[in-house]
Amino acid sequence: MAELGAYEAMRTLRAVRRLRPNPIPDDMLHRVLEAATWAPTGGNVQPWRIVAVKDRALKGPIGKLYNDRWINYSKVYRAGIPATASPEARARAERTLKAGDYLGEHFHESPVIAIFCFNPKNMAITDAKQDRVSVVGGGSVYTAVENLLLACRVEGLGCVLTTLLCECEPEVRKVLSIPDPWYTAAAIPIGYPVGRGHGPLIRKPVEQLAYLDSWGKPI
Amino acid sequence: MAELGAYEAMRTLRAVRRLRPNPIPDDMLHRVLEAATWAPTGGNVQPWRIVAVKDRALKGPIGKLYNDRWINYSKVYRAGIPATASPEARARAERTLKAGDYLGEHFHESPVIAIFCFNPKNMAITDAKQDRVSVVGGGSVYTAVENLLLACRVEGLGCVLTTLLCECEPEVRKVLSIPDPWYTAAAIPIGYPVGRGHGPLIRKPVEQLAYLDSWGKPI
Repeated sequence: MAELGAYEAMRTLRAVRRLRPNPIPDDMLHRVLEAATWAPTGGNVQPWRIVAVKDRALKGPIGKLYNDRWINYSKVYRAGIPATASPEARARAERTLKAGDYLGEHFHESPVIAIFCFNPKNMAITDAKQDRVSVVGGGSVYTAVENLLLACRVEGLGCVLTTLLCECEPEVRKVLSIPDPWYTAAAIPIGYPVGRGHGPLIRKPVEQLAYLDSWGKPI
Repeated sequence: MAELGAYEAMRTLRAVRRLRPNPIPDDMLHRVLEAATWAPTGGNVQPWRIVAVKDRALKGPIGKLYNDRWINYSKVYRAGIPATASPEARARAERTLKAGDYLGEHFHESPVIAIFCFNPKNMAITDAKQDRVSVVGGGSVYTAVENLLLACRVEGLGCVLTTLLCECEPEVRKVLSIPDPWYTAAAIPIGYPVGRGHGPLIRKPVEQLAYLDSWGKPI
C-alpha cells in the first residue's frame, strides 16, 4: 500500500479524544517519535525531548492531574458558549465537551502519553523583549509536535494536542523526574481510536485566515 | 503522479535559504496556505493569520529589517562555534552561515514572504503562571507553520522558518498595517530553490530525543 499522502494526512488530522487502551506496537511508536525528530528547530538545536509514558504507575497520577484541570476548564468553556450560538454550534460545542470529558476520565488509560519537554536555554527567544506574551520558543517545539500528530494520522492512531498539564507543570516534572532546566510544552495521549477516528475537519477557509500584502486585503 | 507521502515530506523538509525570485503560481500558493488552515489549534480557535507579502514595495523594507538582524545574529553565531568543533562541524556551520548570508541579502526578492500573526487574546496560555518563558501560545501557531512548510515541500518550493523579525515586530507591524492585538510569530520566505532544495536531513536520532516513562530512561 502506498504511503498516505502529505496533504491527505494534514486534511484529515482530527483531535481524537476517545482512545482504546490496547497497546501500540513498539515499531509503530518508534516511527511516530522519529517523525518528530525530523522537524525544523531554531539553529537545528532540537531543544525538545519526549517522555513517552507507558507505565500505569506513572499514567495514573498524570491522568488524575489532567482530569482535575479538565473539569475546571470545561466548566469555563461550557459557560462561555454564547447564548446567541446557533443550535448547530451549540451541539458541536457539546459534542467536543463530551469527548473532552471522556478523554479526562480515560487519560490514564491511553497506551502512550507523549510529554513534550523543552529547554529554554537552548532557544533564541527573539520576541523576549516585546510587550506581549512570548511564543517564539514554541517554534522549536510545536513543529515537532505537529510532525508527531501527523505520524499518528499516518499510522491510524488517534491523538490530541493538549496543554492543560502545563498549569501543574511542577507536579508533572516530579512524577516524570524531569530535571532543570527542562519544562513541559504539551501532553499527547496516543492510541487506537474507539470510533471512526480521523476524518474531515471543521476549519475556517483560507480567505478568512490569509491576506495579501497588507492586513485585511483579500488573498 | 501520486501525492508525496507524509513521512517522505517530513523526512526531506530542509531549511532552503537560496530561493529564486521567479513568481509562484497563485493556485500553488493557495494550496500551501490551505494546508496551514488544517492545523490543530487550542479550542479550534485558529488564532493566527498569514500576511502573504508579494508587493516589492513592502518586501523591500521587510527584507532590509531581516538582513540587519541577520548580520547581527550571524556575528554572534559565528563567534559561538566552539574552538573544539570538529572540522566537519565547523564546515557545516560555515555552510549554514553562508546560506544565511544569501538569504539575508535576497530576503526581499523572495516571491512570497508569509508573515504569521497571532492574537494572544484568543489563546489559553496554560503556562502563563510558570516561572519560565511561555511557549504554549506557540502551540496554536507553529502547528500551522509546520503544515505550511510541509505543503511547500510537497509543491517543490523552498522555504525556511525564521523568527528574527520578531526582534523588530513594531516596525514589521507598521509596514504591513497589522492592528492591535495581533503580533508576529514567524516570517517564511517561499520560492523555487536555486539549488537542489529539499533532501536528507541532519538530525539527532530518536534515542537521543525520546525517553521511556521517566527522564533519561532509554526508549
